Amino acid sequence: MKKVSVKNEFLTLLSLEQANKIIADNFSWKRLIEKISIENALSRVLGENISAKVDVPPFDRSRMDGYAVRAKDTFEIDEIHPKKFKIVDSVAAGEFSKKLLFDSYTCIEIATGAPIPVETNAVVMIEYTSKVAENEIEIFRPVTPQENIESAGSDVMLGEIVLYKDDIITPIRLGILSSMGLSQVPVYRKMKIGVISTGNELTKIGEDLEYGNIYDSNSIILINLIKNFGGETIDLGICKDDLNEYFNLIKNNIDKVDLLLISGGTSAGESDYSYRIIKEMGGILLFHGVSLKPGKPVAVGLIKEKMLIILPGFPASAIFAFNSIVDPLLKKVLNLKVKESQKIKAKVGQKFRNTSGRTEFKLVYLIEENSVYYVFPIKATSGSISALERADGYITIPDSLSNIEIDETIEVTLFKDKLTIPDLVFIGSHDFFLNSLTNELKNNFPATNLKLIYTGSTGGLISISQNKCDITAIHLLDSESKTYNKPFIKKYGLEDKIIFVSGYKRIQGLIIPKGNPKKIQSLQDLMRKDLKFLNRNEGSGTRILLDILLKDFSNTLEKDFKEVINEIEGYDAITFSHSGAAISVKRGARDVSIGIKSYADLFDLDFIQLQEEDYDFLIRKSSLDKPAVKNFISLLKSRKFAVS
Amino acid sequence: MKKVSVKNEFLTLLSLEQANKIIADNFSWKRLIEKISIENALSRVLGENISAKVDVPPFDRSRMDGYAVRAKDTFEIDEIHPKKFKIVDSVAAGEFSKKLLFDSYTCIEIATGAPIPVETNAVVMIEYTSKVAENEIEIFRPVTPQENIESAGSDVMLGEIVLYKDDIITPIRLGILSSMGLSQVPVYRKMKIGVISTGNELTKIGEDLEYGNIYDSNSIILINLIKNFGGETIDLGICKDDLNEYFNLIKNNIDKVDLLLISGGTSAGESDYSYRIIKEMGGILLFHGVSLKPGKPVAVGLIKEKMLIILPGFPASAIFAFNSIVDPLLKKVLNLKVKESQKIKAKVGQKFRNTSGRTEFKLVYLIEENSVYYVFPIKATSGSISALERADGYITIPDSLSNIEIDETIEVTLFKDKLTIPDLVFIGSHDFFLNSLTNELKNNFPATNLKLIYTGSTGGLISISQNKCDITAIHLLDSESKTYNKPFIKKYGLEDKIIFVSGYKRIQGLIIPKGNPKKIQSLQDLMRKDLKFLNRNEGSGTRILLDILLKDFSNTLEKDFKEVINEIEGYDAITFSHSGAAISVKRGARDVSIGIKSYADLFDLDFIQLQEEDYDFLIRKSSLDKPAVKNFISLLKSRKFAVS
Repeated sequence: MKKVSVKNEFLTLLSLEQANKIIADNFSWKRLIEKISIENALSRVLGENISAKVDVPPFDRSRMDGYAVRAKDTFEIDEIHPKKFKIVDSVAAGEFSKKLLFDSYTCIEIATGAPIPVETNAVVMIEYTSKVAENEIEIFRPVTPQENIESAGSDVMLGEIVLYKDDIITPIRLGILSSMGLSQVPVYRKMKIGVISTGNELTKIGEDLEYGNIYDSNSIILINLIKNFGGETIDLGICKDDLNEYFNLIKNNIDKVDLLLISGGTSAGESDYSYRIIKEMGGILLFHGVSLKPGKPVAVGLIKEKMLIILPGFPASAIFAFNSIVDPLLKKVLNLKVKESQKIKAKVGQKFRNTSGRTEFKLVYLIEENSVYYVFPIKATSGSISALERADGYITIPDSLSNIEIDETIEVTLFKDKLTIPDLVFIGSHDFFLNSLTNELKNNFPATNLKLIYTGSTGGLISISQNKCDITAIHLLDSESKTYNKPFIKKYGLEDKIIFVSGYKRIQGLIIPKGNPKKIQSLQDLMRKDLKFLNRNEGSGTRILLDILLKDFSNTLEKDFKEVINEIEGYDAITFSHSGAAISVKRGARDVSIGIKSYADLFDLDFIQLQEEDYDFLIRKSSLDKPAVKNFISLLKSRKFAVS
Repeated sequence: MKKVSVKNEFLTLLSLEQANKIIADNFSWKRLIEKISIENALSRVLGENISAKVDVPPFDRSRMDGYAVRAKDTFEIDEIHPKKFKIVDSVAAGEFSKKLLFDSYTCIEIATGAPIPVETNAVVMIEYTSKVAENEIEIFRPVTPQENIESAGSDVMLGEIVLYKDDIITPIRLGILSSMGLSQVPVYRKMKIGVISTGNELTKIGEDLEYGNIYDSNSIILINLIKNFGGETIDLGICKDDLNEYFNLIKNNIDKVDLLLISGGTSAGESDYSYRIIKEMGGILLFHGVSLKPGKPVAVGLIKEKMLIILPGFPASAIFAFNSIVDPLLKKVLNLKVKESQKIKAKVGQKFRNTSGRTEFKLVYLIEENSVYYVFPIKATSGSISALERADGYITIPDSLSNIEIDETIEVTLFKDKLTIPDLVFIGSHDFFLNSLTNELKNNFPATNLKLIYTGSTGGLISISQNKCDITAIHLLDSESKTYNKPFIKKYGLEDKIIFVSGYKRIQGLIIPKGNPKKIQSLQDLMRKDLKFLNRNEGSGTRILLDILLKDFSNTLEKDFKEVINEIEGYDAITFSHSGAAISVKRGARDVSIGIKSYADLFDLDFIQLQEEDYDFLIRKSSLDKPAVKNFISLLKSRKFAVS
């Protein structure tokens, strides 16, 4: 039996500033320079100043197609007194005239970019000449010395420092290096960062997932965050919670990296080896615990003068910790002045609380209304990874603040390069029908930027009443009127605020194993002692339906509702999704659950119909002018979707 | 003799909008999808919607370290009435409990992330328990059903569309794909774009540069601009202005690309084949000529249904044309909503004129003063490539506007990902001493962002009087007082505006070939009929010095200054740089030029001293508080630089 208890509380929590300082003071590495071909140099960082070894252009050249002349031969010319010039040579770009001396009133035909012939000091544009014979032109306008000539070195001067070390190599800078003929460029060697994910529950993608395990997603996130910094990563894979394995993995790789980034195993539980390994290997634990939420258990240490930064295991927590702890270090030691996470100002659309007294990060999404951004929280557990996709970014609430009130202005750190405000926000109940609808919408209008957030019917009603979405979908049975959905418009005071659009009818019922081995017949069977049931979460339309049916059923039995549900083994056990309900039956963990027929079909399970129900849409009136909402409605009304 | 004449004027110029529409209407390609490993998928674009094939998390799991219980066993508990629970099993992350039934008031020890045992429906946090025996705990607080449990599918629900086609793959999205166990991801195949540079004068980098030739820089700029768009490029190299070579290059490669991007050879000269090749190969010339400046000769056509876009040959013109012509096409056909060139608002610091009646692009740099950006033009010829580096971006003046006045607000398109306002702007005379100074500054303070613009002494004086720079350096001899630099402070009204810091003394003189074959002795020799001289540009300190010396000399000879300079073969021939002066002598194009000794030494040439001069610095008083300016001054005063 494994021990997971004995929680060692973190003795002291550092502030983020203290943590960043300790890291900056203790990080050391040797920043080497390598020469690489300019073909591979985009986005690399110059390791040395670049001085011009040649002039650019390397010779005086013509800026125009025309005729090279001695300027003084043209001084007397005007439109009324043109002069004839003999053409004694012609020079195209890439050629040069070998003619060294020529008489007054002679000229050399010259193309743009061709070298100015010796003895000439100006170019007459072709537009101000006319051909009067095979080798003779007439010139109509005078030129001043140096007119239409670009001098050697006028662009880049020999000896001039053109680019500086620490400059990030852009396409334009590559052009400058090329113009000086440089095919190799000295750049900093990339920082080598080793990445390890720890945890017995982690499975490498591509492998089969055993029950109780999850796929590792931290490694790929961290590796690609580092790639965006121009770092080189060494994927050291997954390390089980085993001190020996851990010891050897670090021992064998610490010399190959400049920095080691570990996620997971940093809590204070007995199988959390990540921070303990540092002392175990004779290193120095610089700190363990930062006043962040999430992110508290961040630990940092040194082994053989190499720094280890240990981030929390949940992906969102790891990303927040990366942004607050690793990002500032990399920017500092790499001298990066650009690549800032983009930040924008937004108004608070819903009150935020800081209950921990630590610096809190909250995932948020943004809605734009009349050119003002409003920020709302993403509801998610700390283990959620899809929340990161739904979120536009996050806000940082300082430890000194306890509340941020509605309409206050706050800074949002964006996740993506550039904020793209959604064209349509849906918050409500999830359904296959909705999936096919949004799918179709994206097919027909590829540029539509949708934000879909699944909260169940009640969450949808609350969101639309708070202007947090354009559209919601619900399937709620009103116990009094025994009708679906419409009564809730009034209950939530939405009469003037929304329009109602019918969706489709779907079938709710009991999900049971194929072949129905336990001979389940009806709702009443849930009370059988040999059956384990799985319920849905409170607030979901399915749970509300079940309770209404059970109440009716209690009345028939002349029993109290409480009595009935107490007799159902598993009434308290819940899942948040139709698929969760189906999977638990498929796996044999439960004998029966409740959900819609399409999910029973999807998992090849049997199904006992309880109720046909309406899944309908409510659309905010003030959103009706939005093109994406218009398209959604017309698709909805075309109803060309499979209804299962 | 090659023909460069016969200019066919562009018959009609399209507006930019017309050009963009014709391109969008005529571009066609087959956008294919390929499956790639998620390890290589960063920044690629999803080609299909991604639906979840599993729930994430795949099972109900604990959010905390603690004890899994049946919630109803805890309902009566409070701090005063704790209850004892027997520990009957333990489950760590990655394991699962096989215990299927257990009695009331028993519990299972559980770690964060471990699957919730069947029969239990809540987790009591370890903090609210205490161990009372080896296998027994006391619980102090009740839990509600589902407390501290994260349900299967609560993060991502099976069947739910998680990511949409056209989504750009970010680190977070890679994490989401990983969490669902996807190791392969369907992405759009990259668009294949062939790149050709044309021109007889072009030399490939790495090869020796012959006189009259320049290195090709357009190819690498265009290739890397396309890389930033996620395109795949095929470098088709340099094509000489030869119809056959051109014909074969296109014929052999047109089937391998989705789009062909050509730079150069698009003017109307006889050796400009780029647009004529389209008809030559049986294709369709869609247009030739857009109302842009620079960028007028842009041509677009179709050969075998593949589009060719022909951009101007000068790098800056090619970049402007890429941004106005190619960028909108790629964004449209690739469905890119992000990666916009960043734009900011700035106040006009110096009047801009649109004299062409076309849409004009002007390179600009920005200065920040009290959080307001001021925009100034970069002075450069259209062939300049270093101007692109000195520029922060460019402004677009519509064809309908003729002037943009000082203090008007205008939009600036930035070249870099993020604007970094310089910590120090230098505009003035270039010198080796200045180079070593700025070099040292960058070494000591690597984060310093310098902008160095070389205009010569007079340009520096004008710039500092217009608040366009923090520091200038000049070496100007006042002909009346015969003293250097200081008299010009008064002449330019700078007495209250600047402080004066001495620089160093340098030596001006005649630059002559090694061994002095033509026995040049003094300034008077410039009038010899067997000598060709090379002068410097007007406004340069060196030219001003020469004129003063020649005037003195004219007086001595009792000749008129005009007479004297008319006798100097090459007085009108100029170069803009010391190195230009030295190179022309080194190459034998000129017998003598004028410049500073360090450049004669650099090129191993002989030198006849004419004058010792002062190269001094003027620093704007209002810039004195800037840290970079302070550092510059203290370095300057330490004078630990080699003075040659």
